Amino acid sequence: MTPETLATIHQLYGAQSHFIDDGRAAEWAATFSADGEFDSPTYPEPVRGTADLTAFARRFFTAGREAGERSRHVLTNVFVAAAGAETATVHAYLQIVTTPVGGPSRLVRQATITDELVVADGQWRIRRRVVKRDDAADGGRA
Amino acid sequence: MTPETLATIHQLYGAQSHFIDDGRAAEWAATFSADGEFDSPTYPEPVRGTADLTAFARRFFTAGREAGERSRHVLTNVFVAAAGAETATVHAYLQIVTTPVGGPSRLVRQATITDELVVADGQWRIRRRVVKRDDAADGGRA
Amino acid sequence: MTPETLATIHQLYGAQSHFIDDGRAAEWAATFSADGEFDSPTYPEPVRGTADLTAFARRFFTAGREAGERSRHVLTNVFVAAAGAETATVHAYLQIVTTPVGGPSRLVRQATITDELVVADGQWRIRRRVVKRDDAADGGRA
Repeated sequence: MTPETLATIHQLYGAQSHFIDDGRAAEWAATFSADGEFDSPTYPEPVRGTADLTAFARRFFTAGREAGERSRHVLTNVFVAAAGAETATVHAYLQIVTTPVGGPSRLVRQATITDELVVADGQWRIRRRVVKRDDAADGGRA
Repeated sequence: MTPETLATIHQLYGAQSHFIDDGRAAEWAATFSADGEFDSPTYPEPVRGTADLTAFARRFFTAGREAGERSRHVLTNVFVAAAGAETATVHAYLQIVTTPVGGPSRLVRQATITDELVVADGQWRIRRRVVKRDDAADGGRA
Repeated sequence: MTPETLATIHQLYGAQSHFIDDGRAAEWAATFSADGEFDSPTYPEPVRGTADLTAFARRFFTAGREAGERSRHVLTNVFVAAAGAETATVHAYLQIVTTPVGGPSRLVRQATITDELVVADGQWRIRRRVVKRDDAADGGRA
């Protein structure tokens, strides 16, 4: 794996949380491939495809605003476990930190993500994300 | 943006918190340009220029020592949103985690930073940092 | 220091926590050189060499499983302070976040690490890690 590939993938992870947390729903959805899938046990079923991913990100942001709080996807320990010319597997840790107006900030959840990446339209994008929650015995929804 | 530029900017962010948290005030100030500005709603007004930035970092560290606690600037989600040959914009998340002797550690604050960078004396440095707090409706001081 | 060296070192830190937190004890031990040393004030004495490092990582993971909880080594602020062709010094921040089944997640500890790295068998590995705890006046065990 070249330094260029690693740098590009790290930029994708550097950017992604800002998009969903700042209400830039379409940009968040565009970090996934057109047929990309987001599978988190916090939600009843996987979300698939650009339109549904965009709607999901918009709901996430709007729900926070209506509740009078901000949530951040704090992403750490990004590990590009395997990368070919056009596919890669990435592991990372994810904290959800939520802050109401007036505070205090609260660590709501610690989770892991495992992503399958592909090059689509010349860009590294997420083909499939699986989130597992540390508070679930098996990582989450069966 | 080249891998070299990205690597250099990531090193700047890797280093910076260690400087202020370990009492290396002059080195922290040197991560800003000579006319650099630090604008955080936690403090009554922006801090500008090497001498004032150094004094600010020294006060931050000394206040912690006098209170018998350590604070860490935990920086994550570094995103180089735009970089030219001599300027860049960087977004990141910042947690302040404070620990008194005997513990426990406490997440004091979740914030975002937006930095304008310039190349000065051949080094990437911060020309202007704006911190916004998640616990403020508008991100902080008006 | 070349972008290649930086990228390789960042990958080492990206990977390492996943290994110990997921019970991949031998892979965690292999992030240290054969004579590598892990010195943390949380444990009564330093751990040295591949066999003992492997056993240490296995105990860490097993103890969590028996307690019905998961712990994550959340690593941030990775700073390659100095790197030669075959040695480097790396500073980073470390949060221990523990989550029992059913939650909630809890920030157990904030610490710093200082690592001496060497190239061994063509790979960057940790020759000596010193952990210091923020909750100890002097960083930990004297």
